[in-house]
Amino acid sequence: MKAALLEADKSIRIEPCQPVAPGSGQARIEVAWCGVCGTDLHIYAGHMDKRVNFPEVIGHEMSGTIAELGEGVDGLAVGDPVVVRPLDPCNECAACKSGNSHICYNLNFIGIDSAGAFQGSFTVPAHTVHKLPKDTDLKLAALIEPLAVACHDNRLGEVQAGETTVVIGGGPIGLLIAMVAQDRGADVIVLELNKSRLKLAEELGFKTVDPTAADAKAFIEAQTNGAGADVVFEVSGAKPAIASMTDYAKARGRIVIVAIVPEPVPVNLFQVFWRELKFIGTRVYEPQDFEKAIELVASGKLALDKLITAQKPLDELSEALSTLGKSPDQVKVVIDCAV
Amino acid sequence: MKAALLEADKSIRIEPCQPVAPGSGQARIEVAWCGVCGTDLHIYAGHMDKRVNFPEVIGHEMSGTIAELGEGVDGLAVGDPVVVRPLDPCNECAACKSGNSHICYNLNFIGIDSAGAFQGSFTVPAHTVHKLPKDTDLKLAALIEPLAVACHDNRLGEVQAGETTVVIGGGPIGLLIAMVAQDRGADVIVLELNKSRLKLAEELGFKTVDPTAADAKAFIEAQTNGAGADVVFEVSGAKPAIASMTDYAKARGRIVIVAIVPEPVPVNLFQVFWRELKFIGTRVYEPQDFEKAIELVASGKLALDKLITAQKPLDELSEALSTLGKSPDQVKVVIDCAV
Repeated sequence: MKAALLEADKSIRIEPCQPVAPGSGQARIEVAWCGVCGTDLHIYAGHMDKRVNFPEVIGHEMSGTIAELGEGVDGLAVGDPVVVRPLDPCNECAACKSGNSHICYNLNFIGIDSAGAFQGSFTVPAHTVHKLPKDTDLKLAALIEPLAVACHDNRLGEVQAGETTVVIGGGPIGLLIAMVAQDRGADVIVLELNKSRLKLAEELGFKTVDPTAADAKAFIEAQTNGAGADVVFEVSGAKPAIASMTDYAKARGRIVIVAIVPEPVPVNLFQVFWRELKFIGTRVYEPQDFEKAIELVASGKLALDKLITAQKPLDELSEALSTLGKSPDQVKVVIDCAV
Repeated sequence: MKAALLEADKSIRIEPCQPVAPGSGQARIEVAWCGVCGTDLHIYAGHMDKRVNFPEVIGHEMSGTIAELGEGVDGLAVGDPVVVRPLDPCNECAACKSGNSHICYNLNFIGIDSAGAFQGSFTVPAHTVHKLPKDTDLKLAALIEPLAVACHDNRLGEVQAGETTVVIGGGPIGLLIAMVAQDRGADVIVLELNKSRLKLAEELGFKTVDPTAADAKAFIEAQTNGAGADVVFEVSGAKPAIASMTDYAKARGRIVIVAIVPEPVPVNLFQVFWRELKFIGTRVYEPQDFEKAIELVASGKLALDKLITAQKPLDELSEALSTLGKSPDQVKVVIDCAV
């Protein structure tokens, strides 16, 4: 078993993995697969140096099998296929005390603030572990974490059957949001600039618009008899998209803020007032979103395999991190951590 | 009876009022009082020239008495004290058809898009008229329209008893929002720069902070055991306030967008994501907000008289419009239209 350690200079050192025996209330997992997330690319680019304790194992979109259990862990057994919901809250702050521990003011995000899953063996608090059905494809299960984000965003956005839903940004999270919205019965329009991502979005059954080549607002109005979209997901973080998102929504429409937008950017608050729009900020997931994502993977209803555009052994993580940000044709790259 | 006509050059011409006989479904009202709204100041400053058909009578915060009824009007009688909810929707557009006719895509706002109430006689569709209790003080009743805005904003903001509510901007609408929030049992903090408005806010029983003189975020955190405010009303439209509003709210807190912000301004969407904040755009009112405002005026519970800082005859409307925008010590000026 190996571990991929990210150094402060952003080199990756592959070393033998040193399994950590599970303490009380912990579970040790043998990692099967771990997807590369946009957050991993941000860490690799140095945007999150304040949070990462180098040298560190990153990675949080994982699947695996229970190898060992500490004392006092109920409901799990050695050999169970599992995924980890990588949130370890403080249980003391105002967010935790109001039932929002997923956005704890002192959150330990496993794989950013503490050791993650780009390694063969991974020891975590058992409360973060979700059991999978016995026959789950563990490669697809590496998509459960980002799919849980999409389930959370759809749940908070209250997407209903028959609603026109616009997704701005056709990357992995945007396409997963679109898939979940479609599964909820929505009519989905994906806005994206990259041609191969547009093609994939079309293959997945979504209407698509390249807003640099066509009038996206006019398209959405034509689709909705002039009303505007019921829900808009802003997943791109791009300034022109944020400037336009308020033009796409109907009176009392909802705009779900998914993208991480590091700097304040201009927003059309006049339109928020004029059409009584709602913005709904969304971050990570809650346990029920993981359960919903597990159910969707088990159902086989979503064409999740189409999102996995590459798979690589752990030895090639460095190459994956250095090239993925420059390769918009790639969607999801998964790393084989068992080799 | 007189009428005050606003010319395209923004001069005011006082002329004899020509009463318009009510057609079918209309009511003619003898106007008692009409308040000067911030919107009237915007019209006077030329910001809304595209919507106003000069020469025009403006004004929409009125009270009066039914003088004459057209055919087919039920539920009203000559002599009834009334106010007008100045919204005449198209009943055809997507907003109207989805039950949001108050933000109709083709709204006729009476007093902007068509003739208003700075005149002795005012003829309107009967569906816009709300009857008042017999003994209502018609001067205070001129505050029902802006109070209905405050009721709408509190209703959409879902302000609950015991919630910490921050109101940014202590002008007429901000103070009315604060009063309604306090009536709903909230603990209210008003942020304002002007010393006389701060003093008035204190006299009305609110906590106050001048954010240029003290750390408003630290004050709000100290009041909420570090959690942040449950609800923030942005009523100022000021750039520094909009930049800071997202710092004041707790995890899953609500930010109610009340101010009219004509140009896109920078907003901290990172904080919207990080704390899963909601923005709630609010505009005008619905019938139940007028009924709630009438009930509050009738109850005598709110110190509304403290907001009326001047009253003037219709002849002095020009002076009121030209000085009010430069006089932050003034809160609400009401015009006597019966003289």
